[in-house]
Amino acid sequence: MSTVLPLRRLCIVGVGLIGGSLARALRLAGQVDEIVGCGRGLDNLQRAVSLGVIDRYDTDPARAVADADVVLLAVPLGAMESVMQAIAPALDENTIVTDGGSAKASVVAAARARLGAALPRFVPGHPIAGTENSGVEASFPDLYRGRRVILTPIDETEAAAVDAVQSMWEVAGARVSRMEVAHHDEVLAATSHMPHVLAFALVDALSRWSDRDEIFAYAAGGFRDFTRIASSDPLMWRDICLANHVSVVDALERYTADLSAMTDAVRRQDGEALERAFRNAGDARQRFLAMLEN
Amino acid sequence: MSTVLPLRRLCIVGVGLIGGSLARALRLAGQVDEIVGCGRGLDNLQRAVSLGVIDRYDTDPARAVADADVVLLAVPLGAMESVMQAIAPALDENTIVTDGGSAKASVVAAARARLGAALPRFVPGHPIAGTENSGVEASFPDLYRGRRVILTPIDETEAAAVDAVQSMWEVAGARVSRMEVAHHDEVLAATSHMPHVLAFALVDALSRWSDRDEIFAYAAGGFRDFTRIASSDPLMWRDICLANHVSVVDALERYTADLSAMTDAVRRQDGEALERAFRNAGDARQRFLAMLEN
Repeated sequence: MSTVLPLRRLCIVGVGLIGGSLARALRLAGQVDEIVGCGRGLDNLQRAVSLGVIDRYDTDPARAVADADVVLLAVPLGAMESVMQAIAPALDENTIVTDGGSAKASVVAAARARLGAALPRFVPGHPIAGTENSGVEASFPDLYRGRRVILTPIDETEAAAVDAVQSMWEVAGARVSRMEVAHHDEVLAATSHMPHVLAFALVDALSRWSDRDEIFAYAAGGFRDFTRIASSDPLMWRDICLANHVSVVDALERYTADLSAMTDAVRRQDGEALERAFRNAGDARQRFLAMLEN
Repeated sequence: MSTVLPLRRLCIVGVGLIGGSLARALRLAGQVDEIVGCGRGLDNLQRAVSLGVIDRYDTDPARAVADADVVLLAVPLGAMESVMQAIAPALDENTIVTDGGSAKASVVAAARARLGAALPRFVPGHPIAGTENSGVEASFPDLYRGRRVILTPIDETEAAAVDAVQSMWEVAGARVSRMEVAHHDEVLAATSHMPHVLAFALVDALSRWSDRDEIFAYAAGGFRDFTRIASSDPLMWRDICLANHVSVVDALERYTADLSAMTDAVRRQDGEALERAFRNAGDARQRFLAMLEN
């Protein structure tokens, strides 16, 4: 139902990089009349108004979502359920709700528990985009251009609601895919959530091995790239690990087993096994880079 | 004995990124009269001459090192011992030998076994520099500007030889430190060798978990940075893992234990422990970045 566009009113709950960038993209495309922001930080909401990202704000979620065509929940995963509880009674019978959470099973569980009659118009979503910076000041309309957005509708979800949310993201320039909830959480655990844990664990471990940070002084440029994601928002990643703990633990256990096999290869000085694995990794990464460019 | 500069003759065994960049830097600084290249690939040596990186070459190591003030061994770690064996009988009694190997204990063992009377003028060294590219075409005179070079002299090493090698690297713009062999190998295992194994293991593992590379399609930009070092030369890193296997295994075992604790924190949904570790990692990385800028 791409006829939902242009939106008369879009409500963004959590006006940061993710919500702010979608707002800017839709505004630039002329596909939204009014954007209402909602959040707990007054300073942030006022900044969002002065930056032209939102037209007005309301700190009360129930009032903010009133009469919206689409509501985007762009709050931390740990806050999804309480926001859903707050907005559920106030949702119009036509309002479509979607979210930007990096893990989907926990959001779907919250929606089933809290959204009540609005559940069929809830479209779980995950825009795979971001920068090292966060906050509404970092938002920009091209954040989603060429990036992936995954929608994970459930049995209850109305097809028209999914189509509408897909159209909205496509206006922002994203490539939209649909996926089962569980499959999404497994794939993202492998390629995003677990790698973040690995990087956090590496820097955390090294900082505790050495009492003088001396080891960091001799790290090369590759270390800077390898550990960049360890500078990500600790609260956001704590929430992601908690929300997707089953798939993250599963991926970590599989990785640990593979790493253990590689450690054994180093221990027994098995040059052939190391060369084979290193070559395979390099080849796979080349295929991955080629995919990113397409 | 910085009086060794300017060099009358420098011999580079293994004319690639590391050796070629030092040659270019010394030439640009007017600190070398003649540069002799040595290697197994005729094409590469001819290219190095036409690029002006070396003046002439000899594919026979014993002839190439004749009458050199300084010989730099910039060959893979797996080739160090055989090159030392080949050059030892031909070394002049004043010739200083140094190397660019990323692990030092194995090079020192090879030197003790093969260099004979020249051992006191062998200065084990490790320039911590490199790019994703390799080969003499990738060499440039500023590669070492502001970068670290670690020298790991042993009991037998003459102080004047260490000073001379330090002066040479300083002319190339490097910041030179001295370190015990074992300490070097532990520090580099932690900050370089082990992280490379982690990245190789991650991409290798993911490529085998999925039969369609589908998971890579949904990876974000952070994954590209995190896995950049998995595109490094597989043979070079195989050699490094073999040469420094004791320290690499030790670092991998310690990391695996720390990762296992973090996996447990995810499993028991211990948000406080995760937040504490993630924050500590972010803070440590900030200190590391500040160090890199100084």
